[in-house]
Amino acid sequence: MIRVGIAGATGYTGAELVKLVAGHPGAELTAVTSQSYRGRAIQDIFPSMRNVVDLTCEALDVDTLSQKIDCVFLALPHKVSMNYASGFVEKNVKVIDLSADFRFQDAAAYESAYQEHVSKDLLERAVYGLSELYRDEIAATDILGNPGCYPTSFLLPMLPLVRQKLVQTDGIISDSKSGVSGAGRAASLGTHFCEVNESFKPYKVGSHRHVPEMEEVLSLGAGEPVTITFVPHLLPLTRGMLTTIYATVTENTTEETIRKTLLSQYGPDTFVRVLPRGEFPDIRNVRGTNFCDIGFHLDKDSGRIIIVSAIDNLLKGAAGQAVQNMNIMFGMAERMGLELLQGAL
Amino acid sequence: MIRVGIAGATGYTGAELVKLVAGHPGAELTAVTSQSYRGRAIQDIFPSMRNVVDLTCEALDVDTLSQKIDCVFLALPHKVSMNYASGFVEKNVKVIDLSADFRFQDAAAYESAYQEHVSKDLLERAVYGLSELYRDEIAATDILGNPGCYPTSFLLPMLPLVRQKLVQTDGIISDSKSGVSGAGRAASLGTHFCEVNESFKPYKVGSHRHVPEMEEVLSLGAGEPVTITFVPHLLPLTRGMLTTIYATVTENTTEETIRKTLLSQYGPDTFVRVLPRGEFPDIRNVRGTNFCDIGFHLDKDSGRIIIVSAIDNLLKGAAGQAVQNMNIMFGMAERMGLELLQGAL
Amino acid sequence: MIRVGIAGATGYTGAELVKLVAGHPGAELTAVTSQSYRGRAIQDIFPSMRNVVDLTCEALDVDTLSQKIDCVFLALPHKVSMNYASGFVEKNVKVIDLSADFRFQDAAAYESAYQEHVSKDLLERAVYGLSELYRDEIAATDILGNPGCYPTSFLLPMLPLVRQKLVQTDGIISDSKSGVSGAGRAASLGTHFCEVNESFKPYKVGSHRHVPEMEEVLSLGAGEPVTITFVPHLLPLTRGMLTTIYATVTENTTEETIRKTLLSQYGPDTFVRVLPRGEFPDIRNVRGTNFCDIGFHLDKDSGRIIIVSAIDNLLKGAAGQAVQNMNIMFGMAERMGLELLQGAL
Amino acid sequence: MIRVGIAGATGYTGAELVKLVAGHPGAELTAVTSQSYRGRAIQDIFPSMRNVVDLTCEALDVDTLSQKIDCVFLALPHKVSMNYASGFVEKNVKVIDLSADFRFQDAAAYESAYQEHVSKDLLERAVYGLSELYRDEIAATDILGNPGCYPTSFLLPMLPLVRQKLVQTDGIISDSKSGVSGAGRAASLGTHFCEVNESFKPYKVGSHRHVPEMEEVLSLGAGEPVTITFVPHLLPLTRGMLTTIYATVTENTTEETIRKTLLSQYGPDTFVRVLPRGEFPDIRNVRGTNFCDIGFHLDKDSGRIIIVSAIDNLLKGAAGQAVQNMNIMFGMAERMGLELLQGAL
Repeated sequence: MIRVGIAGATGYTGAELVKLVAGHPGAELTAVTSQSYRGRAIQDIFPSMRNVVDLTCEALDVDTLSQKIDCVFLALPHKVSMNYASGFVEKNVKVIDLSADFRFQDAAAYESAYQEHVSKDLLERAVYGLSELYRDEIAATDILGNPGCYPTSFLLPMLPLVRQKLVQTDGIISDSKSGVSGAGRAASLGTHFCEVNESFKPYKVGSHRHVPEMEEVLSLGAGEPVTITFVPHLLPLTRGMLTTIYATVTENTTEETIRKTLLSQYGPDTFVRVLPRGEFPDIRNVRGTNFCDIGFHLDKDSGRIIIVSAIDNLLKGAAGQAVQNMNIMFGMAERMGLELLQGAL
Repeated sequence: MIRVGIAGATGYTGAELVKLVAGHPGAELTAVTSQSYRGRAIQDIFPSMRNVVDLTCEALDVDTLSQKIDCVFLALPHKVSMNYASGFVEKNVKVIDLSADFRFQDAAAYESAYQEHVSKDLLERAVYGLSELYRDEIAATDILGNPGCYPTSFLLPMLPLVRQKLVQTDGIISDSKSGVSGAGRAASLGTHFCEVNESFKPYKVGSHRHVPEMEEVLSLGAGEPVTITFVPHLLPLTRGMLTTIYATVTENTTEETIRKTLLSQYGPDTFVRVLPRGEFPDIRNVRGTNFCDIGFHLDKDSGRIIIVSAIDNLLKGAAGQAVQNMNIMFGMAERMGLELLQGAL
Repeated sequence: MIRVGIAGATGYTGAELVKLVAGHPGAELTAVTSQSYRGRAIQDIFPSMRNVVDLTCEALDVDTLSQKIDCVFLALPHKVSMNYASGFVEKNVKVIDLSADFRFQDAAAYESAYQEHVSKDLLERAVYGLSELYRDEIAATDILGNPGCYPTSFLLPMLPLVRQKLVQTDGIISDSKSGVSGAGRAASLGTHFCEVNESFKPYKVGSHRHVPEMEEVLSLGAGEPVTITFVPHLLPLTRGMLTTIYATVTENTTEETIRKTLLSQYGPDTFVRVLPRGEFPDIRNVRGTNFCDIGFHLDKDSGRIIIVSAIDNLLKGAAGQAVQNMNIMFGMAERMGLELLQGAL
Repeated sequence: MIRVGIAGATGYTGAELVKLVAGHPGAELTAVTSQSYRGRAIQDIFPSMRNVVDLTCEALDVDTLSQKIDCVFLALPHKVSMNYASGFVEKNVKVIDLSADFRFQDAAAYESAYQEHVSKDLLERAVYGLSELYRDEIAATDILGNPGCYPTSFLLPMLPLVRQKLVQTDGIISDSKSGVSGAGRAASLGTHFCEVNESFKPYKVGSHRHVPEMEEVLSLGAGEPVTITFVPHLLPLTRGMLTTIYATVTENTTEETIRKTLLSQYGPDTFVRVLPRGEFPDIRNVRGTNFCDIGFHLDKDSGRIIIVSAIDNLLKGAAGQAVQNMNIMFGMAERMGLELLQGAL
């Protein structure tokens, strides 16, 4: 039984972590922190947890926390996490960071998208937590940068194909659509019900922060610099993400090759499901689960391939994958505590 | 490990049962039936269950099924269940029926709302499965009528108060609001997205079939005939139900008495949560859980009391309570397999 | 052609007014004010109005405005409007106030629900703008308090019945459900998409500010003090309101009497539609229109009557009724500029 | 005052036409037909139209209808319209067909996507009703094929650019997202509220019927055969469509050139609004209007251009554009009866 703390427990990702860890058979939730709700019981903030989780939000004090936890999830804003991670690592607490602060190999790439990095030593040995594709490195690390939801939905299908040189690295397009919970729990006009409901729009066209994260990982997989075109859109629904990817296959690449490559990467015991020919993902089928569904269509004549992936942005795109990574880091069964099945409705 | 079958597995309630039983630590799902999808794999019908549930829909044959199950859930239409229940009972398979067919003590009440009852012997000894209020009878039965969602949301708060004579039995009003999944999975203009979305309406005003069920149970609790005014409404959301009840308390009844009565009925280990003073249920807090939340406000001067309850219509209002009843009938822990916590988002 | 100004044009009610007045054949929109967006073009704030409305938000200066308008809509917060109304009236600008500040005859009732009233003289001669029921007074006034959305949906069906003594004034219950736009455009956790979507809840149980407004008007109609039980709920949709009213009819009152009374009050040329027997309102049918739909069911044996009304909270419940009142105050056709028909989808 | 008939008045597009024509100052709605609801009043089928439209659905008889109309909208299924169009034309009734039957110049293209065409003579002289781009031809015709919603949202931004050779015709991608009303009013599991709500998915990947329509028009504009990649998706909202287009500009094409070309095509008096630099469409801003909003972003280094357009699928994508075409065909002001402004909420 490992002891777990969650820093930033009262955002949407934090709350998902609370629920997952509270129900995890191999973990015990021993501490939650919150700046905004310090001193208040978690079940007062989330009445859904009444009679289920009985903890009070405390301050984020590394020394105090380290005495009662073996693992900490940092569900903090970008640029805040990096101030706390090394303190935990020094006290032998394994760190799973859900911000962008430890996702980059290249500090310069991080700094151009965010700000100066104050913990470069740690960044250097941090592991990128795309569970199925970096499993060995994850098992060995004590500092992990958990991927963003957009990168997860894009890289799970694309990284294996790029590694095997099945798609051309030039001209890759990712048209991605996310539910509103991806914008976080802070109130703003942009997340007001009446502004989002019955609406749909792209945002940050040409400048989204997740692009460098996707490009760095893809470039490492390709062995050469790759740039992509990425447009995020806001869906009028609470949770879920669907990404439609357009690319061109390399010469001699067939539907068969693509399918075999994906299936050999993602067996039936993983959280990635490669759909049968002619079937495509629907957010409905992954909502409330840690699954990523992938379907694709290859036009033989033109060589154009359309790849579609779907995840629950709060689970496989955040808290679910983070718990999966915890399982790997602590030598537990990878699916433990994640056998949810809420997708039907 | 008890062996479980689900008849009518491809409706919304059936699919919930499949998910719950598949994830239940004390049960093994060994058979599913479907008339419409006979011969097809459950994961083809519900792609969310791919890699999770691996069963094929078979015909509803009592003899064949009885050899591989100890318990059957009948998620069949009203008036169909009663043709199958006695066959199962005779073969020592315990029956949990989710239709209205075994909810009534009084066959005449059933027949006035539905049609002739073809299994009156069995009806006579069937137990009404409102778990927290008929626990002992449920533990001893092999034929159970699982309550409707409207009656569950109404009776959980009201039955204890009526039994204790804390509210007047005259003039009770139940203004109830249900999500669309309560209407079932059959396609109709009434459940077309564009007809429901951004809309809200009452339906079957003055004539809903659930009224006799509520009135019979309430009358038994009161020891005298009770009639109620009930108006169901259709909410533009998938799952959840909230009921606002208006009544008048009896002389000398105080807020204290009401609260104590509810709390003594529903301890912290049950699925009913009595909210603190000034707090009221929100469907958000019970969605995806088996909880029923109850809040109330008593106007001292007028004696008018407003009671609000919320449930997930597919869980505490159907499949969740059915599994809770299975737990009781088979001597398992009442909460086993139901410790969901999906209410935060 | 009357010249119209809108103060507080950038809230949801203000924006509705802008659209209605801009498309009104008898009115010209000559000024809009906004504290938050002063100096900015209205079409920058509401891109839907690009190429349609070409005005810039100015400060709320009574002197400047009065020179270019004959009529002002005050779509300002409660307690702000009363500081401006008398200034406009003095300059012969007719005032239609959409806050609560001029809805009460009895200043004390206002003050107990809100705060001290600073314009009591004006309050005394202000007219309550329930168009169909105070038409003559409205035609003669220069200061009008436009009703709230909850009171409108409740009073349109109830006031005629109470005036005719067809329902008992004791024990009237109003169970009301409103779309989110009723909460205004200000960002808050309570209006965050993820908190409202797929949810439903009552709020301010036992203490809503609209109660005194409803009780005062109803009492005047009844000729005796009437108190009501009122519970507002929040619907997961943008616009629309449905109210379910429970009451008891007086002796000898029949369904016929009720229907005749309502029909004689609300002819086919008004914005109130009394539905045929057995039909009930649906928000879908009034959304985007200025109509109020009313249906009812009388249980002969018990004398209990269920009355259901539906409006668009931003139109008949706010901006639409305000424009209807403007039409009456300026002697224009009552339906001018309001012949919208957006209810089908 | 022209006399108008609507054939197929009880589908979603038909109902929009009824509303638009009923409120049109230059037209009189004199007949509506419906196969399913023959003999029933339109306001019984759409209670939102009570007291507004007073017509009864009749059979679709060309002879009878032709005596009372000057113009007919055929809101019939594909493959049905072509059986009626020539009859009307022969009787001097101008035909605006909203099915696919008269959208193609090339009968073979139609036949490969649909079935044998039974009215090829008429097809040959039919005009494609993309109002802003074929205005002169529209003014002169008596048989018009009204464009599909997907083609409208794609062609309005792309056709001017392709005509001017500003984008390469190779590798154009259209990632399009539509509201549910686009699927029509027929009940099916696919449009069941619970299947669509909180979901999002692509459909008919690699095989959508609208592709030939888009490719034919684009090819004519380019003067060479053009093929595109098109993926439609289903949004969980009632009305609206947003299309994200990816292409590569030709050499020397700058942002300036693109903007100038679009602005010279679409002046401020048209229904197409070219948004300022850095702004992108939102379905919210066009919902309930006949506008098409267009925004774009050009990456100078790569030459990749992202173009986004938004329309209301039932208005500019169907009934609105059809009425706009009627205005042009009958020499009325192009915006008459279409000055709606419902986009703010």
